[in-house]
Amino acid sequence: MLLKEAIKQIQPLNEAAMQAARQRQNILTKPAGSLGRLEELSIQLAGITGKNIPTLKDKVIITMAGDHGVVAEGVSAYPQEVTPQMVLNFLAGGAAINVLARHIGARVVVGDMGVANDIPTTDEKLIRRRVGAGTANLAQGPAMTRAQAEEAVQSGIEIALAEIARGADIIGTGDMGIGNTTPSAAIACALMKIHPEKIAGRGTGVDNDGLKRKISVIVRALDVNKPNMNDGLDVLTKVGGFEIGGLAGVMIGAATKHVPVMVDGFISTAAAMLAVTIAPQCKSYLIAAHRSKENGHGLMLEWLGLKPLLDLDLRLGEGTGAALGISLAEAACKILSEMATFGEAGVSDKK
Amino acid sequence: MLLKEAIKQIQPLNEAAMQAARQRQNILTKPAGSLGRLEELSIQLAGITGKNIPTLKDKVIITMAGDHGVVAEGVSAYPQEVTPQMVLNFLAGGAAINVLARHIGARVVVGDMGVANDIPTTDEKLIRRRVGAGTANLAQGPAMTRAQAEEAVQSGIEIALAEIARGADIIGTGDMGIGNTTPSAAIACALMKIHPEKIAGRGTGVDNDGLKRKISVIVRALDVNKPNMNDGLDVLTKVGGFEIGGLAGVMIGAATKHVPVMVDGFISTAAAMLAVTIAPQCKSYLIAAHRSKENGHGLMLEWLGLKPLLDLDLRLGEGTGAALGISLAEAACKILSEMATFGEAGVSDKK
Repeated sequence: MLLKEAIKQIQPLNEAAMQAARQRQNILTKPAGSLGRLEELSIQLAGITGKNIPTLKDKVIITMAGDHGVVAEGVSAYPQEVTPQMVLNFLAGGAAINVLARHIGARVVVGDMGVANDIPTTDEKLIRRRVGAGTANLAQGPAMTRAQAEEAVQSGIEIALAEIARGADIIGTGDMGIGNTTPSAAIACALMKIHPEKIAGRGTGVDNDGLKRKISVIVRALDVNKPNMNDGLDVLTKVGGFEIGGLAGVMIGAATKHVPVMVDGFISTAAAMLAVTIAPQCKSYLIAAHRSKENGHGLMLEWLGLKPLLDLDLRLGEGTGAALGISLAEAACKILSEMATFGEAGVSDKK
Repeated sequence: MLLKEAIKQIQPLNEAAMQAARQRQNILTKPAGSLGRLEELSIQLAGITGKNIPTLKDKVIITMAGDHGVVAEGVSAYPQEVTPQMVLNFLAGGAAINVLARHIGARVVVGDMGVANDIPTTDEKLIRRRVGAGTANLAQGPAMTRAQAEEAVQSGIEIALAEIARGADIIGTGDMGIGNTTPSAAIACALMKIHPEKIAGRGTGVDNDGLKRKISVIVRALDVNKPNMNDGLDVLTKVGGFEIGGLAGVMIGAATKHVPVMVDGFISTAAAMLAVTIAPQCKSYLIAAHRSKENGHGLMLEWLGLKPLLDLDLRLGEGTGAALGISLAEAACKILSEMATFGEAGVSDKK
């Protein structure tokens, strides 16, 4: 499905299913509303899936990797070689996202959207959709061409559709890419018209000098590139990243198929901002997993109008927060499907 | 084990295990500290269990039921008959706590600590430790005798020890008792020397008049009974509840055996306040699962010095928040035990 078709295909949430879920929550053996955000979440999931009682069986985390030319500016505490090393760690099952995905019974799908160096593996689980060998340095010009931006989003759509065809009921987003909090912050600044000081944070752990450098790099990037805030693909082209574009595509693709997306932290939220700029209707399909410790994440979630489920000072990415959020989404669905009603259990309702 | 022995047996957390867990978090393949509260939690769990790499396999929710004479004052939106009806629902597996316990792979242990009417079941899973047929009306005098208060706590200790003997690695607390937000608020007010307006909330859903009535009932209860804030058993005697005393006992009992306790919401937190008043050393063994929507819960957690893991507007009790919290605790342990180190995975560390 091409991007322009995907944008047209996304439908509003199913109001009848939401109403049915809301009514069912009110006859389950608990005071109405007493499960708070789990109840709200179950109603949103009914609206997304179009099912009165949704079920989430096949849970998938799509973790996308890419490299960033901007690391030449000294914006990260880790060397670029960590990106492919961590991809191998994902494939071997030793990273945090593998642990948390196993914990919640989800599978992890790893995509190479544009890691700088070849990833030395024959593992067929790795989805190879390299748009380029890392982006260009966004402090000096566009991070990529518009054709590359389109390819990144298109690949994300196709990867999401392939996983949905395999059975995915919910998709969590995740990222890996040394340096990628810089383009993510730049995307947020471009779309929100806000100064990088309000958004940029320490990423994997830069010191005060590193943070100052990062902020000045983003100021330069916005000045040099002048991204058009009304054109998500232009923002992606000028100051984005291949994995970020891919994640935006995953969100758009999932929305076309009525599949909920659990948005991870800072990088995934930047991708979500691009996704809703490109395809505004996809917003209702997004659930914010958590508020990251990374500086401007809360403001970005507010801009999206999303209220995070968790607030655990996470700042790792990979989809780790999304995994924990998916477990809550599954719990919310099970409340709807497994709890007894007042009638079934012979419990008296409110006086 | 008698209460006075239990109080003496509780030891401080194991510093060596905490240090080992902290060091291990720093060599796992992620920026140090990037899993935020999950890392802190894993370190606390190491200190509680005395294991460098703790594991939580047998997860148990202990849900205790009791009735309250104060319902005669019209403080609840539901009739008292709901308490035994919900106990039957717990035994049949249809309540929210059953659903969430199954979701996280925990078992639910249900205790009758003093439901007003006999619970019509021969189900041997029900632990019958009735201290009385509901408490007396605390607005008119003590809710129970001091001997009953001691019995409630003692029973809680014994129930916890029995479950730990069966293998429990972590215990979540839960409650059921129509009217029990009133004694819980009264306990908090007595221990914090704070006005009931700051603490009492709508419970299962009383209206404005009901809330006013509830506040004036608690004012009267404190005035009539004059509980001694330095004597947890006196506070339990004067304005407590059988299930609340039982939960305080569970916390004390678990702490003697180095077993972590996931404290649920408003009622469990009142029990935790009693537990730490009776046995101050048990505090380090407590983890606050969530901040409830019930009015003063945040202040009660601050008084305890506990920072909740979740904030999902839950206000159901039963142990529902504790179940979700236990899943996070298990995730925290798995991070320690299952993640690869930088060395193992061949990933470069920080520059």
